[in-house]
Amino acid sequence: MPPLARPQPVRPASRVRKPSASDLCEVRCVDAPKVRRAQRAMKPTAIVAILAETFRVLGDPTRLRIVHSLADHELCVCDLATVLGVEQSVVSHSLRALRQMRLVRYRREGKIAYYSLDDEHIASLVGEGFRHVEEQAG
Amino acid sequence: MPPLARPQPVRPASRVRKPSASDLCEVRCVDAPKVRRAQRAMKPTAIVAILAETFRVLGDPTRLRIVHSLADHELCVCDLATVLGVEQSVVSHSLRALRQMRLVRYRREGKIAYYSLDDEHIASLVGEGFRHVEEQAG
Repeated sequence: MPPLARPQPVRPASRVRKPSASDLCEVRCVDAPKVRRAQRAMKPTAIVAILAETFRVLGDPTRLRIVHSLADHELCVCDLATVLGVEQSVVSHSLRALRQMRLVRYRREGKIAYYSLDDEHIASLVGEGFRHVEEQAG
Repeated sequence: MPPLARPQPVRPASRVRKPSASDLCEVRCVDAPKVRRAQRAMKPTAIVAILAETFRVLGDPTRLRIVHSLADHELCVCDLATVLGVEQSVVSHSLRALRQMRLVRYRREGKIAYYSLDDEHIASLVGEGFRHVEEQAG
């Protein structure tokens, strides 16, 4: 039987975070040419949704370490488990999510299961992400 | 009062998804040189954690559309709300999460709040992501 839902604490109205005035424009001012340019550059909703989901899947340290390990060459599941210092089953679980989002691809050679990145953009994407974080940290 | 939790359907044991044998290596085989190379290339845990959190924050369509809108030039909150077709308060909420992860920066000019991307890697990262998704979709 599932556990009973815990009663949710009621948040006092005074503690609800409102947008601070300094975050917002205090007068309405729209730069129409800039807005039109940004609207023309906007990607279709379906594409934005897939990319958001892709980033969400990459938003997990184990999955990210797997993708980074595969940046240069394919690895089998035993290799990946050894690199990450975890069980094959943990790697396999993460690989399934990555495969579903078409971030990694898979081939079997006899008894060995090899994984590689699905296209060259994925390594660039993660590399660019690390450069951003390292720049911020340094 | 929060709605009552719906009873969760009980999943028959036979339908619980186990790692399929074909996902895993059927024999243990570690390519030691490849593993060492991948281990040497691995980033420190703290850096991986920050990047995973960065991707998690980007894993939301509204936040992603904001970042994409800022790829070429800064925009004020009114401009962003107009581009996205939502209220300033919605944009402000997303901007706060993006600022916390240092993905966007902020400056105030009189009564206007301007936002821009925090560094050039962010536009590249999102651009690379869109190229990956569009290639998969095409």
